[in-house]
Amino acid sequence: MHMETEATQYIRRAAESARHASRMLARTPEATRNHALRTMAGHLRAASTEILAANAADIAEYTGTAAFRDRLMLNEARVEAMARGLEDIATLPDPLHRVLADWTRPNGLRIQRVASPIGVIGIVYESRPNVGADAAGLCLKSGNAVILRGGSESIRSATAISQALTIGLRDAGLPEAAVQIAPGADRAYVAAMLSAAGFIDLLIPRGGKSLVERVQREARIPTLAHAEGLCHTYVHRAADAAMARSVVANAKMRRPGICGATETLLIDEAIAPALLPLIVSDLVALGCDFRADSAARAVVPGLKPATDADYDTEWLDAILSIRVVPDLAAAVAHIERHGSEHTDAIITEDANAAQEFLSRLDSAVAIWNASTQFCDGGEFGFGAEIGIATGRIHARGPVGLEQLTTYRYFVIGSGQVRP
Amino acid sequence: MHMETEATQYIRRAAESARHASRMLARTPEATRNHALRTMAGHLRAASTEILAANAADIAEYTGTAAFRDRLMLNEARVEAMARGLEDIATLPDPLHRVLADWTRPNGLRIQRVASPIGVIGIVYESRPNVGADAAGLCLKSGNAVILRGGSESIRSATAISQALTIGLRDAGLPEAAVQIAPGADRAYVAAMLSAAGFIDLLIPRGGKSLVERVQREARIPTLAHAEGLCHTYVHRAADAAMARSVVANAKMRRPGICGATETLLIDEAIAPALLPLIVSDLVALGCDFRADSAARAVVPGLKPATDADYDTEWLDAILSIRVVPDLAAAVAHIERHGSEHTDAIITEDANAAQEFLSRLDSAVAIWNASTQFCDGGEFGFGAEIGIATGRIHARGPVGLEQLTTYRYFVIGSGQVRP
Repeated sequence: MHMETEATQYIRRAAESARHASRMLARTPEATRNHALRTMAGHLRAASTEILAANAADIAEYTGTAAFRDRLMLNEARVEAMARGLEDIATLPDPLHRVLADWTRPNGLRIQRVASPIGVIGIVYESRPNVGADAAGLCLKSGNAVILRGGSESIRSATAISQALTIGLRDAGLPEAAVQIAPGADRAYVAAMLSAAGFIDLLIPRGGKSLVERVQREARIPTLAHAEGLCHTYVHRAADAAMARSVVANAKMRRPGICGATETLLIDEAIAPALLPLIVSDLVALGCDFRADSAARAVVPGLKPATDADYDTEWLDAILSIRVVPDLAAAVAHIERHGSEHTDAIITEDANAAQEFLSRLDSAVAIWNASTQFCDGGEFGFGAEIGIATGRIHARGPVGLEQLTTYRYFVIGSGQVRP
Repeated sequence: MHMETEATQYIRRAAESARHASRMLARTPEATRNHALRTMAGHLRAASTEILAANAADIAEYTGTAAFRDRLMLNEARVEAMARGLEDIATLPDPLHRVLADWTRPNGLRIQRVASPIGVIGIVYESRPNVGADAAGLCLKSGNAVILRGGSESIRSATAISQALTIGLRDAGLPEAAVQIAPGADRAYVAAMLSAAGFIDLLIPRGGKSLVERVQREARIPTLAHAEGLCHTYVHRAADAAMARSVVANAKMRRPGICGATETLLIDEAIAPALLPLIVSDLVALGCDFRADSAARAVVPGLKPATDADYDTEWLDAILSIRVVPDLAAAVAHIERHGSEHTDAIITEDANAAQEFLSRLDSAVAIWNASTQFCDGGEFGFGAEIGIATGRIHARGPVGLEQLTTYRYFVIGSGQVRP
């Protein structure tokens, strides 16, 4: 209880100073924000020894899996990548002050809708300490102040990184409160951020499904996130066979662990006998395993049978669920029932079928004739992303600089009064 | 507890059928949605006798103030206004299927950001039963299904209106579940809607400050609203005197009870001696009362003194708080401390001062040389509005049809795989 009160007070004080900082950032010219990003990059490089020492101390205490340890680990190359990430953000177009709409009313009032910062953004993240630097860079560029809360396994690394960023802000003449980090990894800080309505404007969780679900379940403030990416590729009867083979292999196996990886293959019964054996053999060669319904197993004997639960499973691994469907309507119905409104694709040469698939789905990203792994801020041309959102408010799909802004109205008159 | 469980189950079932309806609405051509709006208008007129009888029963049981009773009361003219409101919405441009952005990546992938419905919207409202018809019309036009929960004082009227709308939907061949109303005014329904994460996508409270604050405090789902409109008009030293007089009189007294009415006048000390007496005498003639700081009272003797709390008070009445400020920075500081980020105006002939005021403020609407009462969807040219939002996510300022949409991405390829 004591810790909770302390954490709440800490977060509120931090958010108040962050609010002041964000108001200043909102008026800061683009060149100043870019200069600060480059200065922060320099300080990350200069603090490399301290950051790696802090990381070694985190690693020394870590007792979990090797995969998790790899995410936690920093080295010279990863520090350099963080610094270069900030420099890359400095080269992106300014998301602020864009005039999104501009019109004049019959009474002469001119109304402008102008992009502006959201204000104070909270980032709750887990093992990868570089998330703090990336998020801070995107928030700073978009005029937002950020409060970071790193994971317990990487708290020393995250704190060392945050300190380097803070020194960079100061050197660039911007308020240090624009980038802050919770002083510990106690869960009370997460709880305090989740309930900081009016203090923190938006919370972005970065991490595994359990973290994201907890944040979404408990948040009293708006969040942008996706809990899972249960993505589908639907091979329509009018698919080009060679295209279907290469796209499905890429959608599943390029990187099976990312949220845009395809988890379930739906294939029309009309072409399954000819095409499914080829798709499966391509994937077997890449090391993929399968969970298939009886119709698929009739075509490709020896596949493991799928349970109902398999179609609700985000494998994030070299496993593909397979279902043979009678037609497009059945494919859409399957996706509506089992999908996560993240990314779903159709492979077909039939433009009408593609149009129907795209318009009937409700996914953040609907793809025709390409790999689901394209759901990514970089691939969309955003330059950088802070995550993927599958909610239905504010932003959907890849969240880049533009999605970290909101808008305000300027109304310019000449003495108009309302009748 | 029993009621809570029952209300939760009711709302979830309603939201599930609303989800199906919204998916169908999302694919419904504009002409069909407009036809449904006109059909619903016809059924409102046809059900006028039943609606007025239900309203008479509500009124007969009502024991509150006369002002509240007036909001509650319906008559032939108000039913006709509701019907015409739906017909007006039918004439507005379609907010769906707008291509908001369209670009092609170097690899040939074409990416389109397309406006789409949010999905299921909850509306919690108080006395005015017409809010249900207006909200249902705006939601239907924007492809959203809506779940209404009317106030206890007007539950019979609200239910009769909702029934007429439902019959209109059926006659137009659209799913009746697109417009639903909670079967009673028990608070458990509000609680159930506030906690319906994953079922209701957005909640819009329409009513007084206590309702909105309760919703914002307890909601586990996104909301769009403003709890108060503590709006300021700042008369800068370079103001045109005649313009300042007419704009301030309109901003305060045109309709003192709306959220865009000015509650506090800030005036530069350099022009207060010449101008403040004229502004006050204009307002006195309109029946306005004042709460003024000592500097204002030195210029206009006899004004009631202001307390600190007065500057935090949304009067919604013929009362104006007045403070004399040394300069623009002090005016901005006052607004940052006491304002509600709703609407704030500057009156000045100095373009640099206006630019500084607009860019330093963080209000949803910042106005130069016009009345704060222009913060309104109709005045912005939106045709109709469902309210004003002062949050920082999704939409700010007047919420019209466009703000009731979100977006999705269509990605169109020719077999691209991600490297």
